Amino acid sequence: MARVPARTPKGMRDYLPADMIKRRYVFDTVRDVFESFGFEPIDTPVLELRETLFGSGMGEDAEKLVYYAQHAGGKEELALRYDLTVPLSRFVAEHENDIKLPFRRYHIAPVWRGERPQKGRYREFYQCDADIVGVRGPAADAEVMQVVYTALRRLGFADFTIKMNNRKLLTGLGIYAGISDEQLPSLYRIIDKTDKIGLDGVAGMLAESNLPAESVTRLVNILRLDGTGDAQQRLAAIGHLREELDGVAIAQEGLDELEYLTYAADAFGMSGDNVALDLTMVRGLGYYTGPIFETVITKPDNLGSVQGGGRYDELVGRFRGQSLPTTGISLGIERLVDLMEMLDLYPASVSGTTVVQALVTVFDEDSQLGSLRLAADLREAGLRVETYMDPRKNLGKQIGYADSKGIGLVVIAGPDEQAQGLVRLKRLHDGEEIVVQRAAVGAEAAAFLG
Amino acid sequence: MARVPARTPKGMRDYLPADMIKRRYVFDTVRDVFESFGFEPIDTPVLELRETLFGSGMGEDAEKLVYYAQHAGGKEELALRYDLTVPLSRFVAEHENDIKLPFRRYHIAPVWRGERPQKGRYREFYQCDADIVGVRGPAADAEVMQVVYTALRRLGFADFTIKMNNRKLLTGLGIYAGISDEQLPSLYRIIDKTDKIGLDGVAGMLAESNLPAESVTRLVNILRLDGTGDAQQRLAAIGHLREELDGVAIAQEGLDELEYLTYAADAFGMSGDNVALDLTMVRGLGYYTGPIFETVITKPDNLGSVQGGGRYDELVGRFRGQSLPTTGISLGIERLVDLMEMLDLYPASVSGTTVVQALVTVFDEDSQLGSLRLAADLREAGLRVETYMDPRKNLGKQIGYADSKGIGLVVIAGPDEQAQGLVRLKRLHDGEEIVVQRAAVGAEAAAFLG
Repeated sequence: MARVPARTPKGMRDYLPADMIKRRYVFDTVRDVFESFGFEPIDTPVLELRETLFGSGMGEDAEKLVYYAQHAGGKEELALRYDLTVPLSRFVAEHENDIKLPFRRYHIAPVWRGERPQKGRYREFYQCDADIVGVRGPAADAEVMQVVYTALRRLGFADFTIKMNNRKLLTGLGIYAGISDEQLPSLYRIIDKTDKIGLDGVAGMLAESNLPAESVTRLVNILRLDGTGDAQQRLAAIGHLREELDGVAIAQEGLDELEYLTYAADAFGMSGDNVALDLTMVRGLGYYTGPIFETVITKPDNLGSVQGGGRYDELVGRFRGQSLPTTGISLGIERLVDLMEMLDLYPASVSGTTVVQALVTVFDEDSQLGSLRLAADLREAGLRVETYMDPRKNLGKQIGYADSKGIGLVVIAGPDEQAQGLVRLKRLHDGEEIVVQRAAVGAEAAAFLG
Repeated sequence: MARVPARTPKGMRDYLPADMIKRRYVFDTVRDVFESFGFEPIDTPVLELRETLFGSGMGEDAEKLVYYAQHAGGKEELALRYDLTVPLSRFVAEHENDIKLPFRRYHIAPVWRGERPQKGRYREFYQCDADIVGVRGPAADAEVMQVVYTALRRLGFADFTIKMNNRKLLTGLGIYAGISDEQLPSLYRIIDKTDKIGLDGVAGMLAESNLPAESVTRLVNILRLDGTGDAQQRLAAIGHLREELDGVAIAQEGLDELEYLTYAADAFGMSGDNVALDLTMVRGLGYYTGPIFETVITKPDNLGSVQGGGRYDELVGRFRGQSLPTTGISLGIERLVDLMEMLDLYPASVSGTTVVQALVTVFDEDSQLGSLRLAADLREAGLRVETYMDPRKNLGKQIGYADSKGIGLVVIAGPDEQAQGLVRLKRLHDGEEIVVQRAAVGAEAAAFLG
């Protein structure tokens, strides 16, 4: 056969055992948190019908990034999923009779986007979503916010801020400043740039967009609002907004929800460092309709967003006819995996490059079956055990292999030990050795390993 | 927005929470067994370069089933992986400097094949492989056989037979019967039909294939060999074959390996019901070079194969230039998930349709934050807890919701209970109720749930 180059497609990657061990730690931790809040696991096919993905409001730019798929003679037009939100909406409509509302589901799975690859950005990457379908009130929004807080704390992050805002409040701001509904998306786009160009820059852009100078001033003064501090300070800020936006009904509705979320965050014990009101955080996606959230790591600075989300009450209706109120969050799980490494948050137990705890050495071909047997007994005791496979290699080579692979314990039963019904255990991190009874090797090895 | 039909592509399916709970049980059990044998987790991209998949010896018929993929402006020709063996071979060659040989990896992941869907056969399905790369001797084959045995026993299967055979022995049989190398694939194809047409049918087909009558008789007499029974009986059968195939070096080599595997199976405590020599089991794939395995469930009858595998020493060489001896097994994990259901092997803990253990009810809007708080305390005790979100529904409705969803415990803190610092716990399967201190609710609820 002609030799074929061994390479992964551009922007896609293999995960080696050391990667998998870390990823699994993060995924499992998040999964445990999701399930502790009653979110149920689901999965959907990687391939969806093209019509399911397209026209869902993802926007033309996003649609260009979608991967098509087809097999010879296949009659359906297929595409690889672009996110987990559209599949959820399709899922809820398709299985309405098999699920109970409210439906809480989480979904941790890869998605595909043909973007230009760059550091930390891949064409295949995992998303990690938790959503509640069928609840209109802000209690559901409070709960998904609490899920974010709990997951990040559980992973070991301490310095982060969950920024909250509300699309109803933003709509109200538009009314307050005399901006028409059609101009709202463009208003959001400009406000979204605050992080990069500051509020003065935003004021400049608003002025250029044919907005009366007075409107711009009123708007920017409101956007300047300091939404940080403890719950009392944030409630005071909300009170100030209430007065300022007096008579704008939709803004008051948004403020009700923000007030509820502020009380909720306080009730959950979130400190003023972990939660803030931020009127300049608008979230890019078009489909949000109520509370919105975004979480940033605050120390060290500039590590960017690790979570986005909010309420989108209309999306499920695309497949179902009648809509269902839905709120949810998406954790940037790939970024979290990287940040855990950068901030040294992985526990020692997941810092290794192997799942193997013990290597059973082999002396010669005649005793090889005995080694496999010995390994089986160690497994019975719950250990993860590799048996060395090549009896021609001497003991030093075998111990060297264990050491280079990061295996903590070497189990030796040469002819001398075997004759006496004994086994020798060598712990590699400190070189300690003990000799134990063959019959008790499982418990002894587990204890010696610690 | 126009309403879009909610449907999954043909031959593909969603997994509901009840499905996920069962699938995870099977996947996690198998994963634990793989890791206990020192197999390391890896993952590879769903998309591979087309040239990686094609021409790998999968055959033209298989190539027709491959799904192509492409995004607008993408320059690479991509395809969705068809199995996990070709990606492993590519992976080993690509990461040779980052892994240690022998490399034991497992991989549980979906693959795609555009086959005609039918009961139990999907176009997207999971494969579940464990392979050892870099070991030539039969100790590695013995170990992957032991992995199959251990995994099936751990899942609760008792009545199964791991059939073993050897490609070297089959090649030797060809030599013995005077069949040329080029005719071997056709010989394998005919023998492979034994299950369907019986040995007499095979004899008939061999006679039609221009084989001398005497060769056919000699061959079929050997294929008739009874390879069942205890280790002594199987060793006697191997001894008989040794005499019969005296002087056919490659057959003797295959018999050495089968003898080793027979001793190994005995050393691992596998009974004669769980392992058998079967010369008519040849495995379809072209790339096997040594021991081959296939496992069938024996009671009830006709449940078919749940595992395939064997040694393929040449495949990695396609990407690496120089080859590496490799042996491995693939568990039919989708079939196992279904058979577990059919044979009622799932433990009670995974028979439910929800991960939720307790529902915290809500009395009115004012006490809703208190309910969220109560739920948080139950989570601290390790429980998976859903809070009811709609205070307008009365308690009976809320309990009815818990019951219909299969949640075992309802946690009630109405105004009466709250005033006294108490919480009421209601267990749904027997209707039992207790009242506990609010401060101790976590431990009390966990104990009450049992």
